[in-house]
Formats: sequence, structure tokens, C-alpha cells
Amino acid sequence: MTITPDTVQTRLDALAKPPGSLARLEALAVELAVAQQSLGPVIRPRRIVLFAGDHGVVAQGVTPWPSAVTTAMVATILNGRASSTALAGAHGADLRVVDAGMAEPPARPYPSHYRAAAVARGTADLSRCPAMDEAQFDTAWALGADEARRAVAEGFRLLIAGEMGIGNTTPSACITHALTGIAADTATGSGAGADAAMRAVKRGIVADAVARLDGRRDKAALAAVAGFEIAAMAGFYAEGAALGAVLLLDGYVTTAAALIAEELAPGTRRRMIAAHRSAEPGHGAALAHLGLEPVLDWGMRLGEGSGALTALPLLDSAAALLNDVATLAEIMGELPA
Amino acid sequence: MTITPDTVQTRLDALAKPPGSLARLEALAVELAVAQQSLGPVIRPRRIVLFAGDHGVVAQGVTPWPSAVTTAMVATILNGRASSTALAGAHGADLRVVDAGMAEPPARPYPSHYRAAAVARGTADLSRCPAMDEAQFDTAWALGADEARRAVAEGFRLLIAGEMGIGNTTPSACITHALTGIAADTATGSGAGADAAMRAVKRGIVADAVARLDGRRDKAALAAVAGFEIAAMAGFYAEGAALGAVLLLDGYVTTAAALIAEELAPGTRRRMIAAHRSAEPGHGAALAHLGLEPVLDWGMRLGEGSGALTALPLLDSAAALLNDVATLAEIMGELPA
Repeated sequence: MTITPDTVQTRLDALAKPPGSLARLEALAVELAVAQQSLGPVIRPRRIVLFAGDHGVVAQGVTPWPSAVTTAMVATILNGRASSTALAGAHGADLRVVDAGMAEPPARPYPSHYRAAAVARGTADLSRCPAMDEAQFDTAWALGADEARRAVAEGFRLLIAGEMGIGNTTPSACITHALTGIAADTATGSGAGADAAMRAVKRGIVADAVARLDGRRDKAALAAVAGFEIAAMAGFYAEGAALGAVLLLDGYVTTAAALIAEELAPGTRRRMIAAHRSAEPGHGAALAHLGLEPVLDWGMRLGEGSGALTALPLLDSAAALLNDVATLAEIMGELPA
Repeated sequence: MTITPDTVQTRLDALAKPPGSLARLEALAVELAVAQQSLGPVIRPRRIVLFAGDHGVVAQGVTPWPSAVTTAMVATILNGRASSTALAGAHGADLRVVDAGMAEPPARPYPSHYRAAAVARGTADLSRCPAMDEAQFDTAWALGADEARRAVAEGFRLLIAGEMGIGNTTPSACITHALTGIAADTATGSGAGADAAMRAVKRGIVADAVARLDGRRDKAALAAVAGFEIAAMAGFYAEGAALGAVLLLDGYVTTAAALIAEELAPGTRRRMIAAHRSAEPGHGAALAHLGLEPVLDWGMRLGEGSGALTALPLLDSAAALLNDVATLAEIMGELPA
């Protein structure tokens, strides 16, 4: 039986509460049940995989941060002292870190939840040449797909992709501009802190890079403006969806990966839930392109999966509603006539 | 040292993330830290106490539901099959149920988390006479205060009051109209399902009952338009705040109790956090009167503490941010120079 929004709402309306009285939480329950195709959605255990990568385009001054910050933040994550680890711990999400292509790997020794699998030590500068070739894109995609297979094989039912990669809102803006058709100006935001001058440079780079694609949206075209962590997340989403996992999107960069996944593996979006709309001006359009309504609209822009982890327990509430509340008919049967 | 919003924001800005990048979540962290007066807020363990009561005014047709539904829903809660129990279980909140004045108690035997302490078997009809006298108000208040003392003594750091009481948005509308000055029309919503005709009746009752108070807002005046569960929640809030617990408000009825608590025990609001703005048209004004900004604006209107329990894990995220994320200075110290 296909679980449609109507199927789920009918079930919710039968519960022992005034129909519709949980409003947005009921809408989220509908979304979750449809994404998992189950009236009794299960979202534990859940895993977040943080994919890290660096970007040649930072040489153009699109961000105030050097690529070394990618490595420093990954080290902080591995030390369990980052926003992502704090939130993953708070909400019971298993966390893994994958180097998909950092410029510098963190210092050894590596903990068991770290995977060193860099496709290359950072992408090429997408403002001057393709960020990567197709073979590199395939390698990154396969890395993400392998992470999804591994997670599902280990029993994880809900998957989050997070990212760490200084400069990665620039390729994300390119991808969003290319795949949704929104203007380069709308697609280009401030990322982790670009000022107006940097943003102008970034916008020009985004417009030029996408113009060079000449309307193509095939794999080679997308590879030219992607990042290793982005291609890996696209593969992660596509494989995760194929294996029936629920995918909880984070912010602008993960949504760019989701756009690629849907472009190259159509139908992937049916397993997606959008955790939040970020402060990036193009994020709303990217989510709308995927047909997704964000759970939160809190102006967050940290990355690392932080928005997804913040919204995650709201999905727990939605699941609890469907799984643990009696129907009115059940209650009436329990009461003396 | 007094913890001010500036103290907390300074701490947040020192963390290893772009300043301000968690936006609304940071604002919530500020609110939580100030409410608990701690830069390392602790909100576990937490307890929800559901106060139940019935209302003589239901005889006037202000709601489509009979008072028997209060008893049926309390039984469902005691069976662990209600929205409140589902959400409390999902988010690790201990749950108690207190009969502050139901028309009919649920069937025995009672579990240990149930307290039979009815002030009377429902209030008098506030449209015809005072809902209760001052002595009854004092008894209900003391009951709530005792629950707060007990919770704090048992180590609970965050307290939620929830309510179950058919007809209780009518006294809540009276209280909100009387204490915030908003119009009777704005204060009167549809509750758990009043239609337009019922709402017109309800509005007239609210306007008349508050007019009879003649501008008084003393205890006797508030008792005349309150409910036993509402007076109990007011005492719960006042005592909980005095003992340093963080108070997470739910919807319109609990906020009416919060208005009474702040009126009779000024300063109580400093411990309050507003979980959500409900679908009741007067709720936003009531929260604004208390100086509170709701965490969620999801149109929920179920009661039973359901909105507070839904927002609760967002406070966990805010607490995790302050407790578990390294400062930039700490990271720099850990990195090779």
C-alpha cells in the first residue's frame, strides 16, 4: 500500500485529540510517514555523516577564512567539541567524519569514526577550470554511496549529511543557479561571513562558471562546479534513498548536493525532509525546487549538519504522535459504556 | 554575578563557529541561560505536571465537548496513550497528573504518578457567580506550589505545567482580557473546537464576567474567573520560579496561569520561556505582556503541555551549545602554532 498524505492525515484525525489540533506537527508527521512509507515511522537509530572538503576557488577571495579552518574544525569535531558533536550528542545521532578531499588532513591518530578517503587534496579553482573531472566526481559519489550503504546495513533508519568545507557555498551557489534557474545574485549569499566586496567577487565567479556550462546539467557539467564533499553527499543521498532511508537535509550546501542527487538519480527527493531554511538567500528556492517545506526558519548558517540536528527531535515528536497515541475509537472501547 | 543577555552572547560569540551563525538557536540559548542564571544551563531531569479541572461554565455551551471528556482524557494519559505521554516519553520528561478539580475522577486504581487532590468537583459557572471563592483559590494555588516544591526537591531543573479541562479556554480568555487589557473579542478563540455561534456566546460571557470585576485584579477578582487547574498552575509557576526552576510555558491556558502568577508573585516571569504561540488569537498578546517570545509558531492548540514538550528538545540544543562546544581560543591552543 502506498502511504499518501491523505492516508496519514486520516490516521492523525482518528487519534484521541481534536482533529488538526497539533497543526504544523501533524504536517510534519505526514511528511515523515510519507517519506518512510510507514504509518509507524522509525527514525532511530540515526546517523550523521560529516563530509569534509576544500575548494580551489578560495584563492579568489570568496571567503574570509583560509582552508586551514576546514582542517581545524574537523579536528574539533573529532575532539567532540564542535556544534555538530554537541547537537548529535543531545539528540542521539551517531556521528562519522569522512575526508572527501580536504587540503590538509587532521593530525593522526584517527578515531574509528573517521574515514580518510580524500579524492584529492582540494578541488581545482572552478573559476579557472573544472573543479574536478568526471572520474573524480564518480569517486566522490561512490564514497558517499558507500557511506549510505554502510549506515543502512548497520541499521540506521534516518541519515543526515553534514559538511565542513571553507568556500563551499561558492560551488553550492553555482549548482543552485544552474539547476533551479534562480539568478546568480539570489544564489550567492554571504556563506560563513563574506562581506559585500567578497560577495560581489563571489557572485561574478558564480555567474561566469555557470555561464560556461552553457545550459548543460549533465554529470560533467555539475562536476565542473561541485566540491568533493558535495558530490559525496549527492551519492550518499541517492543511495540512502534507494535503500529506503529517510534523508534529513541541512542547509544550503547539503541542499545543493540534494539537487545534484535528484538530477542524476530522480526520485531521491521523495525520501527527503528539509530541516530548515538557512540565511542563504537561495536556500528557499532550492528547497522549493525539490518540493520541500523547511521545518524551521531560524536563519541558521553554520553547516556541519547543525540545522538538521536541531530539527531532528521535532521529527521524534512527529513519530511519537503516530506511534504512541491511542485512537478515539480505542479510548471509547476502554471506557465504560 | 548576574547573567545578562550580553554575558551569554559574549560567550556564544567566543565559540568555535562564525559569530551569530546559529541565529535563533543562539537567541534561545541566551533566553535559557538568563532564565536559569547560568552559562552552563542544566535542564535535565525535567518534569511535566498535568493539572486537570472542570468548569461550571460549560453549561452555557462554550465548547462542543462535555466535561466527561476531561475524565476520559485523564484516563488516557494515565494509560500512557495520550499526546502528552507520547511526547514526554520522546523527550525524557517525567510526567505527573494532578486532579485539581475534575467533575468526575478517573476509575481507580490510581498509579503512583497520579495525585487526587480536587479542590471541588468542578468550578461554579463563572457566568452566573464567582467560579471559586478565595479559600478555594488558595487551596488550588497551594496544591500547585506543593507540586513545584516536590519537583525541585526531587532534583528537577525544568518544570512544565500542562492542563486538561474541557471549557478552560473560557476562564483563560477572562484572565487574559482582565490582565492584559486586550479586547474580549481578541481574547476569545475557538478553544478545542467551538464554532462561530459558540464563540459568540463565549465572547459575551467573557466580556460580562470581566466587566463585573470592575477593573479589579486582586486575588478574589481573579478567583472569580479562574479554574482550579489554572490557579494550581499559577501556584506551581510562582513557587517553581522562587526555587530557581526554569518554567517552560505551553499554550493559552498555561499562559493565563502565568499571567496570574506574575500578577500575584511579581518576578515569576523571569524564569519563564514560552514554548510556542498557539492558534488562540489572544495568546500572542498574553506572551508579549509577559515579555516572552515563543520558540515555535506552529498553530498548535491541543493543550496537555503538548506544545511545551514539542519545543523542549530545542532547549536541549541551546543548552548543548553552551555546555559542549569549545571556544575558538581553546581550539587555537590545541592546534600546532
